[in-house]
Amino acid sequence: MDFETALAEILPMQALLTTVEEKRPYECDGLPAYRAVPRVVVLPESRDQAQAIVKLCGDYGVPIIARGAGTGLSGGALPLEHGCLMSLAKFNRIKHIDPDNRTAVVEPGVRNIAISEAAAAYGLYYAPDPSSQIACSIGGNVAENSGGVHCLKYGLTVHNVIAVEVLTAEGEWLTVGGAALDSPGYDLLAMINGSEGMLGIIMQITVKLLPSPPVARVMLGAFGAVQDAADTVAGVIAAGIIPAGLEMMDQLAIGAAEDFCHAGYPREAAAILLCELDGTTSEVESQLEQVQKIFELHRCSEIRISNTEEERQRFWIGRKSAFPALGRIAPDYYCIDGTIPRRHLGFVLKRIAELSQEYGLLVANVFHAGDGNLHPLIAYDGNEDSQLEAAETIGGKILELCVEVGGTITGEHGVGVEKLNQMCVQFSAPELSAFHAIKDAFDPAALLNPGKAIPTLHRCAEFGAMHVHGGKLPHPELERF
Amino acid sequence: MDFETALAEILPMQALLTTVEEKRPYECDGLPAYRAVPRVVVLPESRDQAQAIVKLCGDYGVPIIARGAGTGLSGGALPLEHGCLMSLAKFNRIKHIDPDNRTAVVEPGVRNIAISEAAAAYGLYYAPDPSSQIACSIGGNVAENSGGVHCLKYGLTVHNVIAVEVLTAEGEWLTVGGAALDSPGYDLLAMINGSEGMLGIIMQITVKLLPSPPVARVMLGAFGAVQDAADTVAGVIAAGIIPAGLEMMDQLAIGAAEDFCHAGYPREAAAILLCELDGTTSEVESQLEQVQKIFELHRCSEIRISNTEEERQRFWIGRKSAFPALGRIAPDYYCIDGTIPRRHLGFVLKRIAELSQEYGLLVANVFHAGDGNLHPLIAYDGNEDSQLEAAETIGGKILELCVEVGGTITGEHGVGVEKLNQMCVQFSAPELSAFHAIKDAFDPAALLNPGKAIPTLHRCAEFGAMHVHGGKLPHPELERF
Repeated sequence: MDFETALAEILPMQALLTTVEEKRPYECDGLPAYRAVPRVVVLPESRDQAQAIVKLCGDYGVPIIARGAGTGLSGGALPLEHGCLMSLAKFNRIKHIDPDNRTAVVEPGVRNIAISEAAAAYGLYYAPDPSSQIACSIGGNVAENSGGVHCLKYGLTVHNVIAVEVLTAEGEWLTVGGAALDSPGYDLLAMINGSEGMLGIIMQITVKLLPSPPVARVMLGAFGAVQDAADTVAGVIAAGIIPAGLEMMDQLAIGAAEDFCHAGYPREAAAILLCELDGTTSEVESQLEQVQKIFELHRCSEIRISNTEEERQRFWIGRKSAFPALGRIAPDYYCIDGTIPRRHLGFVLKRIAELSQEYGLLVANVFHAGDGNLHPLIAYDGNEDSQLEAAETIGGKILELCVEVGGTITGEHGVGVEKLNQMCVQFSAPELSAFHAIKDAFDPAALLNPGKAIPTLHRCAEFGAMHVHGGKLPHPELERF
Repeated sequence: MDFETALAEILPMQALLTTVEEKRPYECDGLPAYRAVPRVVVLPESRDQAQAIVKLCGDYGVPIIARGAGTGLSGGALPLEHGCLMSLAKFNRIKHIDPDNRTAVVEPGVRNIAISEAAAAYGLYYAPDPSSQIACSIGGNVAENSGGVHCLKYGLTVHNVIAVEVLTAEGEWLTVGGAALDSPGYDLLAMINGSEGMLGIIMQITVKLLPSPPVARVMLGAFGAVQDAADTVAGVIAAGIIPAGLEMMDQLAIGAAEDFCHAGYPREAAAILLCELDGTTSEVESQLEQVQKIFELHRCSEIRISNTEEERQRFWIGRKSAFPALGRIAPDYYCIDGTIPRRHLGFVLKRIAELSQEYGLLVANVFHAGDGNLHPLIAYDGNEDSQLEAAETIGGKILELCVEVGGTITGEHGVGVEKLNQMCVQFSAPELSAFHAIKDAFDPAALLNPGKAIPTLHRCAEFGAMHVHGGKLPHPELERF
């Protein structure tokens, strides 16, 4: 029996997509520069079906790529042409909310924001908030260890997940983590978070819920120099204040956001900071006072503080729509995700400006300044010769710059296919070997999302001589499968 | 050339111990029920020496057991008779304190408290505080993922370590983690924490430092019923308050502590709670008020609050000396370490009292109530026939009870050799297989502290039919090497 026929015995007709037209919507995720139509798309709706599919893929040696909502930005859910793409969209139930222990047990296809909506009845919410939180699903959040504006104070996905149940490459159910603070055995939970579907398929997640803060207010500060804004960020953190969010936008981003949604940002500013503080009324007031002093110390030219919830939302709207806003001023843009030690913010922003000039492409900066997580948006026109290549070159150089100053090549978007080369810059051969050993331990036949996240040593040896082209699968690992 | 001769080429004479008299002090750690004199003890003092030793052990197929201060309570540093015991005592330098980023880079042999002492100059400290913090070393803390009174609020060792450098089984240097909030690649840092020297030898640690809280005060509450104290613990946490410490002692422990150090605890109480709150003056005052109401709601018969730092220290002295105090009323005691969901505290304490009666051995309870981490101390006389066996039986039953109510078999002491059987209760075969696969990935020749922490499936199959005797190595895995 061939693979497709065997699948048809497990799945109803509408859950098994085999024609190109049906499969096309799954050819890419949120990084559309890379595309591949998979051999087959499956949409299981029961645990038994999912388990049977994984076992079948094992028997037939067909690689399997799990997909949540497809909003990932590094190509983690990019299909393989010879692979089986498994959508987990139908696993969308919130199975249990436990207000006493402040946890929720959810299926992987549940949308990020749906958890907070369901928990609101108990005065609780789920803290990590990727910009795509209306659409992205919690399984994908765990697979990529997603971040968001509020992760500065409340941690990334990995800090808010206490247990995960995965389907292993052998089709076994494996529970990692649990309700207790510590548990015996190797602590594999952090490793599963951010493992991009390469160690197991995430089928159930237990998340922490937090009590909704009684008060949240935002301070918006305008600065005449980027360096002043950067120094302010360092000053706030050094003062021992951990804001709920501390975001920075530069002039290009401010202008684009204003044109798009008229949030009322000061257009003339070289940079603005948005600093959210939450807690009790007295906590927030005392911290606002401290933060205001630090803003003023660094020549902040204008300060506004939200007085109502409606005003707070308005302060954020420009920041939250910065990506689509930039889409209006350039046909295409490339969003970079790197992290640097906060003290190098000013230097790195200056180098980015120089790269922008050198290659003649606009670069807007919108980012999680508080945790040093940069998101330069490189504007380009894909129809103009060589602009995509220039954008990719700038992007690569920015990431290498991040590593150079002691940072990392990703803050919250994952490695996927996008950053395989930069992994060679970040890690040494023994480090990459350790990652491969882990992968082999969980998936000796290399059937779970193979070729993503961890470059081969061979690839790293060639990196530098090699040229990355956008478009169709330039990755030797991906072609191997 | 034989192994010892090869070692002598790497190490000066005084760093290589080969006679039984020299090796005897290393025959056990803080779990003296298990002892073994190792083939050789080495005390390297440079990174090159340590690396050369590991490579030599690999060449000769000699297992290698790393040892810090030897204060571990689960036998994680128990030698193997055919193995090489490597003491890391000479790696005791604090290499760098970075007050801006609030981190310290330290060698593994640095004592836990020495980090806080060195950081005090900057108004900073290292939060996790095992009871043995005067003696225990940070490398061992990482290897066992140690806890302490303040871990309720500030997290276990794993939550306070941001990077670790290990020597791999192949003698390569591997850095795991880094300064950024997230980094690409599998997140192996949590896995290294608590891996009991089985995945790599911890040679350098970067820890987080915290600002010393402006104020810390302790509330001591006396309760006429253990259940009331247990309900109070649940009530405090449910109110959203995270005390810096929340400890419980039962009547037997109170009496022993009073006899030993006259802390002024109310002897007639069935249980006392010690609740430490820290932060700004206004924060602490407002929380003390809330906590007092919760204490009173659960029939607390007496409340005292520390007004001075000296008084705060006095409140803690009885708790901190509870272990030696119990040593005065019984020739031997066996300290159990299990964790349960807080809501089952009352039930589990009742079952422990029943087990105490059934086997005719006193059991005192002193524990980290806030995070549900129990430390029943089973008093026995090793010279009386069968008392050690009875103590071990009670201990085993308590741990199985912990698992039964949804908890775990260890909170902060690790698995070591002590809890190999209980691991069979805690984990399923696929889970244990995942652990073995990880071990194989890092250490295919099984030379790093083999036989600890993770039982073989074969052993688990036999567990139940098997009887554990204290004394000399009852563990088949250990005998294999």
